[in-house]
Amino acid sequence: HLPFMLFAGPCAMESREHALEVASAIKEITTELGIGFVYKTSFDKANRTSLSSARGVGLDDALPVFAEIRETLGVPVLTDIHERAQCKPVAEVVDVLQIPAFLCRQTDLLLAAAETGRVVKIKKGQFLAPWDMKNVVKKVTDAGNPNVLITERGASFGYNTLVTDFRGVPTMARDTGAPIIFDATHSVQQPGGQGGTSGGQREMVPTLARAAVAVGVAGIFAETHPDPDNAPSDGPNMIPLHLLKQFLTELKEIDALTKKRQNLHFFAE
Amino acid sequence: HLPFMLFAGPCAMESREHALEVASAIKEITTELGIGFVYKTSFDKANRTSLSSARGVGLDDALPVFAEIRETLGVPVLTDIHERAQCKPVAEVVDVLQIPAFLCRQTDLLLAAAETGRVVKIKKGQFLAPWDMKNVVKKVTDAGNPNVLITERGASFGYNTLVTDFRGVPTMARDTGAPIIFDATHSVQQPGGQGGTSGGQREMVPTLARAAVAVGVAGIFAETHPDPDNAPSDGPNMIPLHLLKQFLTELKEIDALTKKRQNLHFFAE
Amino acid sequence: HLPFMLFAGPCAMESREHALEVASAIKEITTELGIGFVYKTSFDKANRTSLSSARGVGLDDALPVFAEIRETLGVPVLTDIHERAQCKPVAEVVDVLQIPAFLCRQTDLLLAAAETGRVVKIKKGQFLAPWDMKNVVKKVTDAGNPNVLITERGASFGYNTLVTDFRGVPTMARDTGAPIIFDATHSVQQPGGQGGTSGGQREMVPTLARAAVAVGVAGIFAETHPDPDNAPSDGPNMIPLHLLKQFLTELKEIDALTKKRQNLHFFAE
Amino acid sequence: HLPFMLFAGPCAMESREHALEVASAIKEITTELGIGFVYKTSFDKANRTSLSSARGVGLDDALPVFAEIRETLGVPVLTDIHERAQCKPVAEVVDVLQIPAFLCRQTDLLLAAAETGRVVKIKKGQFLAPWDMKNVVKKVTDAGNPNVLITERGASFGYNTLVTDFRGVPTMARDTGAPIIFDATHSVQQPGGQGGTSGGQREMVPTLARAAVAVGVAGIFAETHPDPDNAPSDGPNMIPLHLLKQFLTELKEIDALTKKRQNLHFFAE
Repeated sequence: HLPFMLFAGPCAMESREHALEVASAIKEITTELGIGFVYKTSFDKANRTSLSSARGVGLDDALPVFAEIRETLGVPVLTDIHERAQCKPVAEVVDVLQIPAFLCRQTDLLLAAAETGRVVKIKKGQFLAPWDMKNVVKKVTDAGNPNVLITERGASFGYNTLVTDFRGVPTMARDTGAPIIFDATHSVQQPGGQGGTSGGQREMVPTLARAAVAVGVAGIFAETHPDPDNAPSDGPNMIPLHLLKQFLTELKEIDALTKKRQNLHFFAE
Repeated sequence: HLPFMLFAGPCAMESREHALEVASAIKEITTELGIGFVYKTSFDKANRTSLSSARGVGLDDALPVFAEIRETLGVPVLTDIHERAQCKPVAEVVDVLQIPAFLCRQTDLLLAAAETGRVVKIKKGQFLAPWDMKNVVKKVTDAGNPNVLITERGASFGYNTLVTDFRGVPTMARDTGAPIIFDATHSVQQPGGQGGTSGGQREMVPTLARAAVAVGVAGIFAETHPDPDNAPSDGPNMIPLHLLKQFLTELKEIDALTKKRQNLHFFAE
Repeated sequence: HLPFMLFAGPCAMESREHALEVASAIKEITTELGIGFVYKTSFDKANRTSLSSARGVGLDDALPVFAEIRETLGVPVLTDIHERAQCKPVAEVVDVLQIPAFLCRQTDLLLAAAETGRVVKIKKGQFLAPWDMKNVVKKVTDAGNPNVLITERGASFGYNTLVTDFRGVPTMARDTGAPIIFDATHSVQQPGGQGGTSGGQREMVPTLARAAVAVGVAGIFAETHPDPDNAPSDGPNMIPLHLLKQFLTELKEIDALTKKRQNLHFFAE
Repeated sequence: HLPFMLFAGPCAMESREHALEVASAIKEITTELGIGFVYKTSFDKANRTSLSSARGVGLDDALPVFAEIRETLGVPVLTDIHERAQCKPVAEVVDVLQIPAFLCRQTDLLLAAAETGRVVKIKKGQFLAPWDMKNVVKKVTDAGNPNVLITERGASFGYNTLVTDFRGVPTMARDTGAPIIFDATHSVQQPGGQGGTSGGQREMVPTLARAAVAVGVAGIFAETHPDPDNAPSDGPNMIPLHLLKQFLTELKEIDALTKKRQNLHFFAE
């Protein structure tokens, strides 16, 4: 068992300087702690609650920054794609293509991502059961790309609320063989909960992340920002960057216990 | 108040002959009953549960058939679109562009549909609250297209189950001013409930449709097929074509009662 | 098919005068409309959100009032019971014993109610599926009392929210043979939604009641009060008494349509 | 911080010998591991799915056995009570009175339990939000009994399914100050899921228990049995007794990490 990996970064790319600064800061922390790190940021927020919300710098401006982060910092990069046509150009400069949760059933997008040969990280739709992900993953692996990661990010629970069912972690791992990543910051989102934008419960991130690591996830996804309250999107649920080290230190301890077990999830038959 | 409209047809286009035959049969029934009719069928099932499921005839083969149905039968046509690039060519031959429920938050798709000037029928995501649709509709109307229809098709309720909250009908009507259409056949879907495909409860369609009409919807959407059990998709929830007339007759009676009320949904203050 | 019945009254008994006044007013309306009427009121609110909430006049003071309403007005009476020992004395003066939703799985309470020989009206727990009521009803009928009514009053949907799944009406009717009553006012409750008390959406009562009648319920349960905003409990969801006649008039029209059908709920096989 | 406590035993008392044997076996394990232990068993299963299900030995036969376990083994005992009148006699021989989840809003039962002065352990109703427990606990503490434990055992999630929202643990701890116990075996119940009885996912118990301990619960509740598949109730979710030691060993390691933190649940402000 490898120790857990971290996928982290600001929700949306704000500028080249901001991206490099945050990537560099996270790299320093994860290197010190001995945790693998993939930088995540979005070039476009394609499904904001409202039309007037900020969307990001766009594909053309983001690609050179992704390339620069990989080259200068030696950090692998993840971003999310929303349409088939984005897969190929994005795959040239990033290591992991992420399929957004709302789009996880869009066959053509999954196939286009699969064809790039890059790692495809699929967020489980809020409307799917854990056992539904088997068919989703199969769309990518049947297309010849075995490099799939699944992300758990909560299920719809009544209105404007998500709940994380941690039984999904061993279920999806068993059904698909894919590593399961827990998205600790979107799982505390309150979609649409603030009228024109989504709310969030930032204070609950450590609670759910601790649970996820104890349950045996392969990695943690967490959006982080030097100043979440002034971030263009997802501020209410992002982790303040200055707390990241303490957050990861606690998780790493639990992870070490978890990973030494042979048969973590189920009672021996 | 106009009497309720019907949006109906087979889930997926199977062939030109099949499409014309079913459109013609439904037109005969709705003409006799004095109900407005829009023919619905999909050229591509873009989000099937499994890769091995049939997807449909495709855009190129479907467009001439849509055109022929409009011309020879004088019936308006609706189909669903999945990517921005499809909006323009599809809009040339159909009257209503339908945004699938999973895609109802994809801003670019909404804007591309809006720009065609056609009626945009948005299916409410299974992961949204009724009051979340206000921002969704606003994306289209702010783009200069006031012709929006909202479709209620159930909300996620635990795993592999949808529930229809009929309070959403007056809520969305009040919040947006848009006519509310009830999708009587997808609301009884059991998503992913049969492993590789979705299940459904066809026998519950009349129950939910009666409720919807009594609550005051502007129209009913219902997939229908001469032989649902052998249909390429959505067989478990489609209405057998030979029962459609009886189904609509009952609904029309309720609708007549409903529409004569001034203040249907709320108690007068 | 008989026309639908009404179970109505103020949530809690306030005084003899208040009880007689409201019972008399409802009787006048239902007599004029030709609708059967059972007076409902509680002598004790045994499961209020908070200890400081009002609980009612109590068993000893309520029983003579129940008896007086039956005798002077000729109106059958329903009240809810919470412990085995209450069943026998209450059954001496009321016609229908109601099992509260939270208590619908308490075997001893169901048996004690069954043994009185009175009609037993069981509210479906917010935590049960429609098909779970089969075993609940069987506890009463196996005890030799065939007179069971089931009440639908919503299912838990996330936090502090109930949703009514109208598929439950035909499902429970088919599974048990018992008449299904729709509780139109508790179905719009927002349990715990106001901190120390439960909230409600009074304005949604007509919407859900119309749906229920169109779906074919045998009766409607609705709490009503001359001045809901000053009632000791359930004010946010009770119907103002002066609107009751209009409310029932609309429902009776739908009911007349519904009841003339042979095979209402399901498509003929 | 004290290490976590274990509340464990067979779901229902089967016989004096069986009770003593299991209590003794668990005591041996917990003593070796240095974990506090309270023996739990029910004298009556008062809310079984079906009338034909076994209910247990009854109050009169159980009380002497409870007394014997306390005296001969020196182990504190917990049992659940269902009606006011049971509180006093039961309190004479047990240390902890447990309020069943369905009954957690029954004011009189809470008060009768409070008045005994014993510890009152309240199971959170499947139909309540975490923040709703504040008023429930207050009913007991306002009656002069500060010794309250809260048990998390899952929330209704669609039909026949429970989900555990671990955000509830810090929320209820903050709101009430009461220790939070996680019921690891009822949380994997599938209520009503097998028709006449409830199903369960025994294999998921370790997953959810690990999460709970990582999140910081004060104790774990787990039903256990030497032969779950032949137990009179709750077999599908009880832990086989021979696996209990391994189960607790893993949890104790996580607990040690969790308890050394000052500010476990929330980010420092």
